[in-house]
Amino acid sequence: MTYIDVPAGVPGIRSLFLFRPDTGKHLYALAQELLRGDSPLTPAERELIASYVSSLNQCMFCMSSHAAAARELYDEQSSLVDCVLSDVENAPVSTKMKSLLQIAARVTKSGKSVTQNDIDEARAQGAGDREIHDTVLIAATFCMYNRYVDGLASYTPSDPSEYKIMGQRLANAGYQLPNQKNS
Amino acid sequence: MTYIDVPAGVPGIRSLFLFRPDTGKHLYALAQELLRGDSPLTPAERELIASYVSSLNQCMFCMSSHAAAARELYDEQSSLVDCVLSDVENAPVSTKMKSLLQIAARVTKSGKSVTQNDIDEARAQGAGDREIHDTVLIAATFCMYNRYVDGLASYTPSDPSEYKIMGQRLANAGYQLPNQKNS
Repeated sequence: MTYIDVPAGVPGIRSLFLFRPDTGKHLYALAQELLRGDSPLTPAERELIASYVSSLNQCMFCMSSHAAAARELYDEQSSLVDCVLSDVENAPVSTKMKSLLQIAARVTKSGKSVTQNDIDEARAQGAGDREIHDTVLIAATFCMYNRYVDGLASYTPSDPSEYKIMGQRLANAGYQLPNQKNS
Repeated sequence: MTYIDVPAGVPGIRSLFLFRPDTGKHLYALAQELLRGDSPLTPAERELIASYVSSLNQCMFCMSSHAAAARELYDEQSSLVDCVLSDVENAPVSTKMKSLLQIAARVTKSGKSVTQNDIDEARAQGAGDREIHDTVLIAATFCMYNRYVDGLASYTPSDPSEYKIMGQRLANAGYQLPNQKNS
């Protein structure tokens, strides 16, 4: 039961957008720019980081929906998403991506827990300023979305097929503002 | 030393805006709407929540700048800001504000740590849906800003007079996009 009076049956952050569109529109615009805008990281890689952080924060809604988006975007390599979520150490991703996921995990704990060693390791694996910046901001941003969604106990579907549809929508159309019709 | 190459001597999130304005503009717009837009909470109360969350997250830059903004906005009652930051239990704020600060503290730990009891207590003290919503979103949002600022080790001034100037600017002009001239 959601803690505030939002439209029934609308999942996660979409219900919160409908409750307060004035802030919701900026949250959607931020996600669209950060996860689909210009970046040296692919949209698939960015959705993977978003899903990984949401998993560490135990936010089922964000983890499931962004994992679904990452699976769509990785296409034939979609199984690596679940490998990262279940065992990041042995997942079939590049050493650069592992170093970025390590930074994301640190950010999930706190900003100050990111060390110069973490940054040096990412650079040694080929990451530049923009990859490091975008990783930190994606991780920080999902620490917000996760807390917003769970802190108000918003509706979290349990049927995996619902997340598959969400993932397809996020992969194909990105972060479009919900309206009463398509929510 | 900031982890990425941002303009030297520009503090906190302003330097990160200059590094990536495409995301920065949405972060500023969100802060402006959330902390200055329509809400049953006053701008002073919202800055207090922002500063309190930043204090719990040990983000010196955000804690100091938003405490300075809250002191400006509370004006003659400015001392209550430091009371909240040092001893929230005994601070001279309403029981409603204490219940909202309790929710904010929970959100700082995780979204799921907010309980029905926390919500019931806030309602018993007179908080409605919008106060609860805005408190959760402010707390979640500062869990992002704090991690963004500290996760990239952005410049944190140590001179209190710098924060006083920032607080006056935030109180009087709100969250305006920085440019090379006024950063």
